[in-house]
Amino acid sequence: MSARVLVVGYGVVGKRVADAIQAQSDMRLAGIVDVVPSALVGIALERRYPVFAATAEAAEKMTKGGLRVEGDFDAALRAADLVVDTSPEGVTAKNLPAYERAKKPFIINGGEKHSVTGFSFSSFANYTRALGKTGTRVVSCNTTSLCRMMIALRTVGAIDDAFVSVVRRGADPVRTSSGPINAIEPVLGGFSHHAPDVNTVIPELKIASLAVKVSSTLSHVHMLRLQFHKAIDRDAIVEALNATPRIVLVSGAKGLVSNAHVLELHRDRLRPRGDMWEVGVWEDSILVDDRTAVLTYCVHMEAVAVPENVDAVRAMLRLDADPATAIAATDKALGMFQPNANYRSLGHG
Amino acid sequence: MSARVLVVGYGVVGKRVADAIQAQSDMRLAGIVDVVPSALVGIALERRYPVFAATAEAAEKMTKGGLRVEGDFDAALRAADLVVDTSPEGVTAKNLPAYERAKKPFIINGGEKHSVTGFSFSSFANYTRALGKTGTRVVSCNTTSLCRMMIALRTVGAIDDAFVSVVRRGADPVRTSSGPINAIEPVLGGFSHHAPDVNTVIPELKIASLAVKVSSTLSHVHMLRLQFHKAIDRDAIVEALNATPRIVLVSGAKGLVSNAHVLELHRDRLRPRGDMWEVGVWEDSILVDDRTAVLTYCVHMEAVAVPENVDAVRAMLRLDADPATAIAATDKALGMFQPNANYRSLGHG
Repeated sequence: MSARVLVVGYGVVGKRVADAIQAQSDMRLAGIVDVVPSALVGIALERRYPVFAATAEAAEKMTKGGLRVEGDFDAALRAADLVVDTSPEGVTAKNLPAYERAKKPFIINGGEKHSVTGFSFSSFANYTRALGKTGTRVVSCNTTSLCRMMIALRTVGAIDDAFVSVVRRGADPVRTSSGPINAIEPVLGGFSHHAPDVNTVIPELKIASLAVKVSSTLSHVHMLRLQFHKAIDRDAIVEALNATPRIVLVSGAKGLVSNAHVLELHRDRLRPRGDMWEVGVWEDSILVDDRTAVLTYCVHMEAVAVPENVDAVRAMLRLDADPATAIAATDKALGMFQPNANYRSLGHG
Repeated sequence: MSARVLVVGYGVVGKRVADAIQAQSDMRLAGIVDVVPSALVGIALERRYPVFAATAEAAEKMTKGGLRVEGDFDAALRAADLVVDTSPEGVTAKNLPAYERAKKPFIINGGEKHSVTGFSFSSFANYTRALGKTGTRVVSCNTTSLCRMMIALRTVGAIDDAFVSVVRRGADPVRTSSGPINAIEPVLGGFSHHAPDVNTVIPELKIASLAVKVSSTLSHVHMLRLQFHKAIDRDAIVEALNATPRIVLVSGAKGLVSNAHVLELHRDRLRPRGDMWEVGVWEDSILVDDRTAVLTYCVHMEAVAVPENVDAVRAMLRLDADPATAIAATDKALGMFQPNANYRSLGHG
């Protein structure tokens, strides 16, 4: 019998995790929990996802709005083996006692603090530590991407020092009340939170990060600079990235000159919602000088951590004890790019 | 008698340099040379700037357009002791033979190659080398800012390694046919040109730069990381920046949380065109850890190199042999922030 996963909060991440869960062969979506009679919940119903109402008030609103409600929060929890909570900041914390009362393992997302679960997850770094865990935090899009990159790049050589300048998208496309418009907004008063967040997953890595927020809704872009312990070879970096799942090399020389071009190609591949689950590294951004390497990549903030959410389910419910096969299963079910593939449209071959 | 300066090309930089020249006590604007009967040329006439037409065809168009034309290119050159050429890329090169024929010293701007003059100018770094020169290139907005910063920060201690991530504005406000809209566009195929351009002025500095272009028209933002040779003190950095002309510290804690906020304050100060000739360093971005320092600042691309253009005139015509007094004269005439001032609106005091 496949594992039953409940998604609480049907928003930017929740709706994607729900679809990704449903795409796996060893798990299925027990349903979603939400609070508003939105058009989006209508889509969940069209997909025959059981919809539960978080509160009695929500149930009334949703029913009045013509949406079929399967039951309340308790009913939702009874139907599930594990909960993925993707609620907005502040709401997740209020939900946790219910999960503990119902004795359901839960996943929270990167907006929440590390201390909530005391365990932050990134598949490449610490899958096996998540086996059987009852509470796991899947780190944010930026952190997930940085963890993937660091684990991949450490196979090339020991890293003495990592420094990343994060150019953050202003907001997701539908956050129309957010900014900035036109302005560039730096993180002030300290380093950005990204590097310390990587350290919740990879504690021993020396890394620092700065960030600015810009008028853009497509993706984050990271400019990464690494000092390796010894001189390294550019080809080794290209090979390492190419051999790593969930990282793809894209080519500016073949026309992918901005994040818009990279994402457009994923729309052309008819990815659901145009999602790019992979970190997209511009191959022509990889420059090496002795021990120093720089590279630039884009991070589709809405999508990139979705595979890690699926992996976390698999680990916590012990559906697969081996990270390599678990990751491969997730990626194959989603239709992701495979390692070492020669994707001509991305600029390979 | 004051030195007569001709500005060729009355665009983003030219119109600002013209006003800045006219504001000085030891020089005056001999006129401007342009090619189109634009509303902007109408403003030059309102300011009683002599307007010359670059070609016979341009003269006809401008006269037809109701604009009073003072004479042709040769007449303009006869009226001048020195030329500042701010023409678009490609046009400047075509103008140079005329300056050489007329034996007029000339300044070109950062869009042109270093090799055109073999001498790239930044006041803090090499003012005295410009004394009496017949051809000088004033480096671009980004390079001018980086040179100011490096010269200021080297007073704190020797710099082993500088790395800057440049977040470039997509285009100046009126370049409405330019992009990107929404997208983030990295420099690919190599490091960005900014660091090598700094080396045309400060050859011995070890510096590298990456850049992305974003959907913004207000300013560039630089995230700068420095490795000093020895451990340094944060206060020493703050003091050095504060003591340097053309660099101001601004405070996010006092509400200046983006480049829009910083520039708005310069509009509120009734700066001409809202211009910010100073590099604006966020004081709360300055972080120091042993030998490493990071800081973030904004660069008003339209305005920042204007004072250096004025300085270059002063040096080339030997109006002042001393960089310190020349720089002070330029800045005072423009009404710039003075070193070590305590500007409350920027967050000081």
